[in-house]
Amino acid sequence: MHKALVLTKLPEEYLQLIEAADLLDLVAIATADVADGLARGSDSDILVGDPARVIAALPHLPDLRWVQLTWAGVERMLDPSLRRDYVLTNIRGVFGPLMSEYVFGYLLMHERKIVARLDAQREGRWDTTLPGTLRGKTMGLVGVGSIGAHLAATARHFGLTVRGYTRSSADCEHVSRYFHAGDEAAFAAGLDYLVAVLPNTPNTRRIVNAAMLAALPPHAVVVNAGRGDTLDTEALVQALEARRLAAAVLDVFEEEPLPSTHPLWHTPGVFISSHTAAPSFPADIVGVFVDNYRRYVRGEALRYQVDFERGY
Amino acid sequence: MHKALVLTKLPEEYLQLIEAADLLDLVAIATADVADGLARGSDSDILVGDPARVIAALPHLPDLRWVQLTWAGVERMLDPSLRRDYVLTNIRGVFGPLMSEYVFGYLLMHERKIVARLDAQREGRWDTTLPGTLRGKTMGLVGVGSIGAHLAATARHFGLTVRGYTRSSADCEHVSRYFHAGDEAAFAAGLDYLVAVLPNTPNTRRIVNAAMLAALPPHAVVVNAGRGDTLDTEALVQALEARRLAAAVLDVFEEEPLPSTHPLWHTPGVFISSHTAAPSFPADIVGVFVDNYRRYVRGEALRYQVDFERGY
Repeated sequence: MHKALVLTKLPEEYLQLIEAADLLDLVAIATADVADGLARGSDSDILVGDPARVIAALPHLPDLRWVQLTWAGVERMLDPSLRRDYVLTNIRGVFGPLMSEYVFGYLLMHERKIVARLDAQREGRWDTTLPGTLRGKTMGLVGVGSIGAHLAATARHFGLTVRGYTRSSADCEHVSRYFHAGDEAAFAAGLDYLVAVLPNTPNTRRIVNAAMLAALPPHAVVVNAGRGDTLDTEALVQALEARRLAAAVLDVFEEEPLPSTHPLWHTPGVFISSHTAAPSFPADIVGVFVDNYRRYVRGEALRYQVDFERGY
Repeated sequence: MHKALVLTKLPEEYLQLIEAADLLDLVAIATADVADGLARGSDSDILVGDPARVIAALPHLPDLRWVQLTWAGVERMLDPSLRRDYVLTNIRGVFGPLMSEYVFGYLLMHERKIVARLDAQREGRWDTTLPGTLRGKTMGLVGVGSIGAHLAATARHFGLTVRGYTRSSADCEHVSRYFHAGDEAAFAAGLDYLVAVLPNTPNTRRIVNAAMLAALPPHAVVVNAGRGDTLDTEALVQALEARRLAAAVLDVFEEEPLPSTHPLWHTPGVFISSHTAAPSFPADIVGVFVDNYRRYVRGEALRYQVDFERGY
C-alpha cells in the first residue's frame, strides 16, 4: 500500500482527478493545510505539492521516498539545508502550450492594436488603423528548453523566423540560428520580439542585460516569462521611458508580488500578468503524477527527475 | 508591351513593390485617384485595384483584358450592369494567416483575461486570477474555405477540436466533424467558440441565426469575420444582454462603418475591430499580382480566377 499526501491550494480538484485515475494500492489525502495533512498523513511515502508546502512538510515525513512538485520551478528545493534523501520530480512538458498561449496572446494583442481599438470602441469610433502582423517577423528566444521549443513551433506556425540564445544547446528544429554568451548584440539586432523563457537553472541572472536591450530596434517587444532576475529591470524601464522599446510583457519579477509602488506598474508600454503565464492546472499536474505513480509502483525510473547537484 | 493601371490608396507602396519585381515588358502606373489614373493609363490592358476604384475605371478602359482585385470580396464586381469581357482574379490564400492572427489574438485575449489584468495594473494590483486556456476546447467554423482551413490548422496547433458547418464541403484534414443546413443545434451544442468566416458566396444571409446562437453554451464566444449579414445581429445582442453568451468579436457589419449610435458599440462582451481583420497588405497583394502577371504574359491560366456566374 502507498500513501500520497497532496498539499495544494486546490485539494478537491486534485483528489477528484487522482481518484478518477483509479490507481492501484494508493491512498491519497489532499489538503491546503500542511498541519492538517501531517496530522492525517505523516506516514506517507509520496508527497505532492507546491514548493512552499512541500518544504514545510519535508522534515515531518519519515517514510518519504518521492516528491512530485506541482511546479516546474525547483530552485527552492535545492536549498542545501533541506533533506535530499528522496526522489524529486517536477513538471515539464505541460507548460510549453500554456506559455505559447501567453506569449502569442500578448504579441497578437500588440500587433492587432487591441488596446487602442477598445479605446475607440468606448467612443463609438470606427477605427480602421491597419493592424500589424506576426508573419515575416523575427523572434529571439532567450532559453530554448522544452518551453522555448514549443514557442518556436508556434512562432513557425505564424510565419516567424526564430533565433535562439542559449548556453550551448542548438538542437531545436524551429530555431534557424543560435547565439551564445558574448553574442548579445548580434542576437538582438533586428529582432521584433525578444522572449525570455529561461529554464530554472543557475547563472541566468541578468542575461537580458542593458547591452542586449540596447541592440533591439525601437519597435521591439520584450517578453519575460521565465524568471524575474533574468532581466535588468532598471535598464528595461529606462529604455521604455526613452521610447527605445515599444513594449514589455512581464510575468515574473525579482520581488513577487510586485510591490504596488514599483515604477513598472505605470511604465509606458508595460503589461503585467502577475505570474499567471503558465499556471499549474490540476488536470495537467495529475496527468504527470499518475504516469509517474505507475512507474513508481513498477520500480521504474520516474519522469522529470531533478538532479540536486545540477539543479534541474 | 503591357500596361498596368494600379488604383489603390497606397500607390507608392504598390509601385515600389511592382518595380522591385522587375517584370518583363510591363509599364505600371499607380495612383489613388481614378481620374488621374485614366488620364495617364486609359490604354492599360491590366487593372489592379480595390472594387470601388475598379468599378469607377471599368467603363473607360477599351483595351482591358485582366482585372486583379486587391480584395477577396468580389460581390460588387458581380453587378449585372457591369461589363464582364475581361478575366477577373481576386486575392486568396494570403488572408488565412491574417485571419488566424485576428481570431486567435482575440480568443487568447479573452482566455487570458487581458482586459481585466489591464484594469488591475492601472490600480497597481497583483492579479493572480487563473487564465483560461484554448487547449481542449472546441471551435465551430461556419465556412471552411481557404480561410477556415487555415483557422482549423491554427486551432489544431493550440490543441482545439474543430467542427465545420458548411453547405456541402467536408474535406479539411483539421476538421473532425462536419454539419450542414438543418444541423444548427447539433453543430453549436457544446462549442466554446463559434467562428464565422464564410467565403464570399451568395445565400449565406443569417446562417448564424437565433437557433444556432441559442444552442451555444453561455461561456461561448462568437466571432464574425466573414460578412456582416451572416449573423442575426439582433439575436446576438439579445443573447449578450441576457448573458447567454460570454463575448462577441465582430469585424464586419451589415452597415459599415457601424453607425456611432448602434447598440453594438456598448453591448456587454462585444469587441469591435472595424473591418481590420484581414487587410490587404501591399506585399501580399503584389506577390499574387506578380505571379499572375508571369502567367498572363505566358498565356497561362491565372490563379484565383472568378467565375461571374458562380459568384466566386
